[in-house]
Amino acid sequence: MYEARLLQASLLKKIIEAVRELVTDANLDCSESGISMQAMDSSHVSLCALMIRSDGFQHYRCDRSLSLGLSTGSISKILKCAGNDDTVTLKAEDTADALTIMFESPKQDRISDFELKLMDIDSEHLGIPKTEYNCIIQMPSAEFARIMRDLQVIGDTCTIACDKDGVNFSVSGDMGKGNIMVRNNTSVDKEEDKVTVTMEEPVTLKFALRYLSLFAKATPLGPTVTISMTPDNPVVVEYPIDTFGYVRYYLAPKIDEADE
Amino acid sequence: MYEARLLQASLLKKIIEAVRELVTDANLDCSESGISMQAMDSSHVSLCALMIRSDGFQHYRCDRSLSLGLSTGSISKILKCAGNDDTVTLKAEDTADALTIMFESPKQDRISDFELKLMDIDSEHLGIPKTEYNCIIQMPSAEFARIMRDLQVIGDTCTIACDKDGVNFSVSGDMGKGNIMVRNNTSVDKEEDKVTVTMEEPVTLKFALRYLSLFAKATPLGPTVTISMTPDNPVVVEYPIDTFGYVRYYLAPKIDEADE
Amino acid sequence: MYEARLLQASLLKKIIEAVRELVTDANLDCSESGISMQAMDSSHVSLCALMIRSDGFQHYRCDRSLSLGLSTGSISKILKCAGNDDTVTLKAEDTADALTIMFESPKQDRISDFELKLMDIDSEHLGIPKTEYNCIIQMPSAEFARIMRDLQVIGDTCTIACDKDGVNFSVSGDMGKGNIMVRNNTSVDKEEDKVTVTMEEPVTLKFALRYLSLFAKATPLGPTVTISMTPDNPVVVEYPIDTFGYVRYYLAPKIDEADE
Repeated sequence: MYEARLLQASLLKKIIEAVRELVTDANLDCSESGISMQAMDSSHVSLCALMIRSDGFQHYRCDRSLSLGLSTGSISKILKCAGNDDTVTLKAEDTADALTIMFESPKQDRISDFELKLMDIDSEHLGIPKTEYNCIIQMPSAEFARIMRDLQVIGDTCTIACDKDGVNFSVSGDMGKGNIMVRNNTSVDKEEDKVTVTMEEPVTLKFALRYLSLFAKATPLGPTVTISMTPDNPVVVEYPIDTFGYVRYYLAPKIDEADE
Repeated sequence: MYEARLLQASLLKKIIEAVRELVTDANLDCSESGISMQAMDSSHVSLCALMIRSDGFQHYRCDRSLSLGLSTGSISKILKCAGNDDTVTLKAEDTADALTIMFESPKQDRISDFELKLMDIDSEHLGIPKTEYNCIIQMPSAEFARIMRDLQVIGDTCTIACDKDGVNFSVSGDMGKGNIMVRNNTSVDKEEDKVTVTMEEPVTLKFALRYLSLFAKATPLGPTVTISMTPDNPVVVEYPIDTFGYVRYYLAPKIDEADE
Repeated sequence: MYEARLLQASLLKKIIEAVRELVTDANLDCSESGISMQAMDSSHVSLCALMIRSDGFQHYRCDRSLSLGLSTGSISKILKCAGNDDTVTLKAEDTADALTIMFESPKQDRISDFELKLMDIDSEHLGIPKTEYNCIIQMPSAEFARIMRDLQVIGDTCTIACDKDGVNFSVSGDMGKGNIMVRNNTSVDKEEDKVTVTMEEPVTLKFALRYLSLFAKATPLGPTVTISMTPDNPVVVEYPIDTFGYVRYYLAPKIDEADE
């Protein structure tokens, strides 16, 4: 028997929207410690890893570890049926071929339950090596999302150059070039408006804007995003899920052909 | 000479939007007692009946009964030209081949008039037999609309099961099943949030979700909807028009092939 | 060296949106007196003329007159990258093949610069003869935009008839006719709600609604529009740019075939 109750159905909705466009089918691994998911995007370029620890749930019971194969599109459709203030409960039998998703309105006068058919999905769990990062950027998630959206009108490849003064995002394309400089900025009124660069050495890397833009779908999860970079390693773009989890995206840098 | 003046052009707009997608062409029957319309949808599955009694108009004059053949799409386009606070006047000569629709802004500084060409539409007025209903559900119209929208993502056929505790809407499809329970609920702050089931006997019937969704286009007309069901008879979904009329939709239940 | 700094990037955005759909490529003529542009629409039916005087800029320096050939679509894309409160600076070298567009956030913590490639555009500057107009209509720009949008659902050709009482916009088409009368109205609370007709003689002219609608894309520039008409001459539809410029559209009247 598996049962997990989350106070805000809307949070689960945001988590699924954060991965839906990148990952179409994935195994939700449910264990005593919580729910996790790891999946490559459909073109096998980026990796998405998700964790919601059991202490984030109002009620959590996991008799036996389960791997639930889901279509993210289908669960997204079902989550759209939740009211803004509804709680959500996920339920599955140990030998389940369906996941039950139950929504309850605050006054209990509307209860909906949906049964989502499960799928067998082949997946190998990739070990992600611990890496030391030369630059760790923390910045407002909305600003990162906006920069990705803005630069996409100019070109396909984003150069992220980070040094002690801040971060520079640049792109070039047929119509011209674009360059957005975000300065290290810790003297702001709101903690979440802060831009901080924790740096050992400056790093400059190039990435496919298309993927960075897809990562920014996680923006509604919270006010800040952390970008960790080190040469010759995938960038990690991380959005915390409250205090009890995260969505992390990994993307390998593009190799500059001119440098080869 | 026919002349009918309604204080809120926006109300007429909502009425036309309530039928526009279901019924493309229809006769507006104008008589001393008011305006009525009765029409099958274009696939002849459901019936829509409309009544606006003459006392709902600020000014009403009907020298001779008229039947005005209209394209609901065309009148809808014209009504979109009305300002939010405009009054609307419908005018037609007794032998008219056009309906004049006049909008006046509150300060009379903007007056628009449109002439809509009339059409000859063959229609037979169906007598709707008086029926006793085993279950009459009254619920918030917005909630009914939302449930129809939500369930449509799962499947095509909605089972409505009504008993003394409330109403259960359910659906199933390729990705799974859905079930939404709305409980009898009379202890609410606002009259319009009330869910009441007036029941002689429990009823369970199946309907095409597509039509129930189209009926829900009438939601802007007001806060409540009434659903009347009895076995082997069409369901009636009724939206009151203020205190002086209604839009009613009739839809025959689907016959469960497994039951035959 | 050319450098022009405008306090509100949003104003430049509105100016470009006002011409973008009508004119795809145009030369921006930068001189000591300011920035001007003159271009026919792509089907050579209407003419658009733009002027922003140098005193409208916070900083303005023009060592040598320049003609910058731009794609309005490309500059529009770049301007969408500006924040709402950003300032914008345009920069070009005297022999430039690119225009630099720089945005600065109010606190200077975000600076973006874009380089837009320039194009060689053949254009002849048309002399627009000074004309005396029989009717000059000043009316709220939002109302003019709305009337153009409303009438377009009925037909393609708008007849504008202006006399001392006001202006009448009319149209006819397959589904019927439409007629919107806007009365001379000077006793209003807000200056910008005023409708005034300054008239020597009544004028009635016909125009292609498609173009009048495109002109109305300039509506966000300000609360009023001025329409100047005289027989056998193009109508002028003018939107002021604050106190330091304008966007003007010229459109030749349609000749009524029945009159010929």
